[in-house]
Amino acid sequence: MPEDVENMREYREKMNNIILQNADKNIKRFFTQDSRVYEPGKLDKKTKELMGLVASTVLRCNDCIFYHLDQCYKENVTDEELYETLNIALIVGGSITIPRIRNIFEMWEQIKKF
Amino acid sequence: MPEDVENMREYREKMNNIILQNADKNIKRFFTQDSRVYEPGKLDKKTKELMGLVASTVLRCNDCIFYHLDQCYKENVTDEELYETLNIALIVGGSITIPRIRNIFEMWEQIKKF
Amino acid sequence: MPEDVENMREYREKMNNIILQNADKNIKRFFTQDSRVYEPGKLDKKTKELMGLVASTVLRCNDCIFYHLDQCYKENVTDEELYETLNIALIVGGSITIPRIRNIFEMWEQIKKF
Amino acid sequence: MPEDVENMREYREKMNNIILQNADKNIKRFFTQDSRVYEPGKLDKKTKELMGLVASTVLRCNDCIFYHLDQCYKENVTDEELYETLNIALIVGGSITIPRIRNIFEMWEQIKKF
Amino acid sequence: MPEDVENMREYREKMNNIILQNADKNIKRFFTQDSRVYEPGKLDKKTKELMGLVASTVLRCNDCIFYHLDQCYKENVTDEELYETLNIALIVGGSITIPRIRNIFEMWEQIKKF
Amino acid sequence: MPEDVENMREYREKMNNIILQNADKNIKRFFTQDSRVYEPGKLDKKTKELMGLVASTVLRCNDCIFYHLDQCYKENVTDEELYETLNIALIVGGSITIPRIRNIFEMWEQIKKF
Repeated sequence: MPEDVENMREYREKMNNIILQNADKNIKRFFTQDSRVYEPGKLDKKTKELMGLVASTVLRCNDCIFYHLDQCYKENVTDEELYETLNIALIVGGSITIPRIRNIFEMWEQIKKF
Repeated sequence: MPEDVENMREYREKMNNIILQNADKNIKRFFTQDSRVYEPGKLDKKTKELMGLVASTVLRCNDCIFYHLDQCYKENVTDEELYETLNIALIVGGSITIPRIRNIFEMWEQIKKF
Repeated sequence: MPEDVENMREYREKMNNIILQNADKNIKRFFTQDSRVYEPGKLDKKTKELMGLVASTVLRCNDCIFYHLDQCYKENVTDEELYETLNIALIVGGSITIPRIRNIFEMWEQIKKF
Repeated sequence: MPEDVENMREYREKMNNIILQNADKNIKRFFTQDSRVYEPGKLDKKTKELMGLVASTVLRCNDCIFYHLDQCYKENVTDEELYETLNIALIVGGSITIPRIRNIFEMWEQIKKF
Repeated sequence: MPEDVENMREYREKMNNIILQNADKNIKRFFTQDSRVYEPGKLDKKTKELMGLVASTVLRCNDCIFYHLDQCYKENVTDEELYETLNIALIVGGSITIPRIRNIFEMWEQIKKF
Repeated sequence: MPEDVENMREYREKMNNIILQNADKNIKRFFTQDSRVYEPGKLDKKTKELMGLVASTVLRCNDCIFYHLDQCYKENVTDEELYETLNIALIVGGSITIPRIRNIFEMWEQIKKF
């Protein structure tokens, strides 16, 4: 259960490469589209990554959460901003998200150490 | 299926009053807490309401969506900002959210007319 | 959005009849099995119906909620017991269940009037 | 709760037009991609529409269910094939899908009458 | 995939401590509220923990399941009562919950050995 | 996070045996019913297993996904057919299914090696 962000990062990259080399056009298009929606527009990248984090948390997907946490760190999200974001995810998604919140606190500390 | 935002607003208010008059302390505390997390802090109210909208859309709850759309309008969210937000919800949540996106476009037009 | 329990009861019965007359053996077996698990055993029927209500509320299915509410009423569930049950559903499932809680308060009043 | 497939068809088309006229590129691309994945390839269209129906049923989205039911009818899906498909959705998704199964039986009769 | 309840207990406690020392008021309030709703009231603690177990199982969260299983054991829930509870979760939530049921059987044996 | 299909196969079998030896009649009946719905009928077994795979992917359950992948391999599903199936799951379920798609690519390679 403890999360190792370095392993997550490597596994993610390795499997994405395998998918992009082997999968058909439609899967590749989805991956392209998945990157595009987080690009800065009228809303900045930080806001979009925080939205991605909220969505991943209420849908309770640890790998998705990790990816957006990593991006949030690059966008200089502070601890306080992270907590305010988690408050919304926690209220909307309920106590069923608490195990994910535990993982987020653990992953966030690891990400900050790099 | 067509949504009437005026009816939604009235039903929501009427039932919230009934709940707050009758329910026990724990339910009331949850309602209080539910308001608190959207108050402006390090993140502004607009960002928080957009997060609420993303979460409600990927979890596919029309009444929740409507409430946050209504708040987004009060926070001067533009069409473009709304679309960028919906892009994230659509990519994360998939085509199963499209019927909610349809309702959002319909409700947004109604909200803007008031 | 306002719920009419009399219509829900009729629609449910009408469609169940059509399904049981037309569907294949596997669907019928599932319906039989669905009744069996709520029969009194080591746990009494009231406890089982309250469990069904919690499950239906966190999964946010109004028709399922209504059915279990109807059964809870027959098992003499009190308002206080209902509220304590809803507290658990609300904490576990989060604010996304609130629109269902509103419908529950409305349906409960209608059920009590019959 | 009773479903009117003619209204569903009209609302769907009307709102899709509004979305495609107003939304940004990313939303439009998603809609295009959503059509593409059901086109016949190594698997035929009928199989793909049945898959879309199973996915929509376990995720419990009536509008999505209706769309795939409509396509299944055009692909000459028989009652028996529909029931076998619903058996899988019902077992995987559980009794929480039963209200959707009720709507499917109702919609299927309406679709067959056109 | 095999579950080690001792590790789960330790990780849960360690991370809860970190969260309660670092998180903001709203997160702490949610944690307090999460404890309160399972306190005995008109319904006893055992019934409430069984409800928590049903909700966690249909929402398929192993860490939440483990916590409620642990509490159920303290409330002297018997094997037969556990099975009747799982029957409801399995019927409502469908075969998608079976992997969680497997983990529950494994965790229950470990919990009983302590 | 990397998946070991041999371990998954063993754990699944071991726990199923424990459940079938210990659980009550209703749980056993559910397991029987769960096998029955995938038996060939008007639709062949391959189509049914692909449906099971789509349902498991949009509901994001790795153990369920693995089981259906294993069956798909026995039914001679090709890489291209698998990709077309995943396209539907990905579009319907959204980017939140991508971590499962990564696991599917990894598991599929392992399954093909046996």
